[in-house]
Amino acid sequence: MTRFRLLVEYDGRPFMGWQRQDHGPSVQAAIEDAIATVTGAPAVLHAAGRTDAGVHAVGQVAHVDIERPITPFRLMEAINARVRPAPVAILACEEAPDFHARFDCLGRRYRYRIVNRRPPLTVDLGLAWRVSTPLDAGAMHEAAQQLLGQHDFTTFRAAYCQAKSPVKTLDRLDVERIGDEVHIHAAARSFLHHQVRSMVGCLKLVGEGKWSAADLKAALDAADRAELGINAPPDGLTFMEACYPPAAVG
Amino acid sequence: MTRFRLLVEYDGRPFMGWQRQDHGPSVQAAIEDAIATVTGAPAVLHAAGRTDAGVHAVGQVAHVDIERPITPFRLMEAINARVRPAPVAILACEEAPDFHARFDCLGRRYRYRIVNRRPPLTVDLGLAWRVSTPLDAGAMHEAAQQLLGQHDFTTFRAAYCQAKSPVKTLDRLDVERIGDEVHIHAAARSFLHHQVRSMVGCLKLVGEGKWSAADLKAALDAADRAELGINAPPDGLTFMEACYPPAAVG
Repeated sequence: MTRFRLLVEYDGRPFMGWQRQDHGPSVQAAIEDAIATVTGAPAVLHAAGRTDAGVHAVGQVAHVDIERPITPFRLMEAINARVRPAPVAILACEEAPDFHARFDCLGRRYRYRIVNRRPPLTVDLGLAWRVSTPLDAGAMHEAAQQLLGQHDFTTFRAAYCQAKSPVKTLDRLDVERIGDEVHIHAAARSFLHHQVRSMVGCLKLVGEGKWSAADLKAALDAADRAELGINAPPDGLTFMEACYPPAAVG
Repeated sequence: MTRFRLLVEYDGRPFMGWQRQDHGPSVQAAIEDAIATVTGAPAVLHAAGRTDAGVHAVGQVAHVDIERPITPFRLMEAINARVRPAPVAILACEEAPDFHARFDCLGRRYRYRIVNRRPPLTVDLGLAWRVSTPLDAGAMHEAAQQLLGQHDFTTFRAAYCQAKSPVKTLDRLDVERIGDEVHIHAAARSFLHHQVRSMVGCLKLVGEGKWSAADLKAALDAADRAELGINAPPDGLTFMEACYPPAAVG
């Protein structure tokens, strides 16, 4: 049996999310089913980040154990051929003994894309959040820095989040304006369910001038889900990267 | 009657092209029909560039005459509301007496996006051309410079192109690598039908090492459609900008 590490890209639009579900298509099922048609045996994938419905990835990492002898290149090619027409691609594949995509992961990085304009989206429909009100990206960035470090992030947690503790350490929350877009870059060892989208929703209120930086800090300190401003839609969210210790790369 | 100038963005995927057709949806018909529901009268749009099926635009320019009094802002809002769910957006709208989107246009700029990798596309499916063979963008750029200036571009012309003359002046044909993407920027007063996609198809052969710069030059000099290497697919092509003399802006 060989363990393989996969680098995975997908368009989240047609999926109920990463995780296999009974009631709709998932990225996990698309890849597992593709592998099963290659190997003739059921496959079980483990991923660094179980993204929600409509959330995209360009740097998701997963691992899978396969009994049948196969080279990494052949496995990657076979999955990419058989996963079609689902918008999923394996970008890299290597043997990785003892590697665990979820438990070995030291850091996750997400990007959230806002297109800050009044006209509706066309080519970016489903790939960004359109916000009509002009956003002050500088004010958003400044306010965001208050969330860095170790905090109880209960305010930014989904009601059904299953994490044992609401305490997380946020390493990066940068807001930058690029033309008519506002990008938010978030990095942490791990995130609570909906944490990035909740933080983005509140930062949007700051950008619109509806919330001050102090309001954001007060919401954090309240550690109360009722303080939450608004959840940003999944459209703008992309899982960019999962980081591992060099030794775990295999 | 008032003439309006429109800045138009669209995702070309669901359309047969810009121009109204009997046998399928077009960008022109989507906007004209939206205007007709606002004004109660038929509308006729004229565009700077009549893009082909599957070609996108972020800076298309068009004009339309409207009898009923309406402000530019109200017209823009009404079109954007009524054109849905077609992936078309009016980004700007202004009154422009004596302005002609096609005949006043002094320059058109296109961008062609190649994603240069082996795995299939996911979020970029339909928005870029995937080329598996590693491309030498430097060699492509160098060869491309031979096409600048005034030439008979018959080699790069569609068989059914209706332009009176195959002689055009190419102002810019830059090739740049950005990570795993290769972007080609083309600018000219006007282009022959399929000219950009034909040039990109030949430059891809240069990037793969199948054609030398001299082969590209020989193909141009032959002024023979039979010399054409390959036509790039519409997916990667975007109409970026139409330029006008300041006076014609209105």
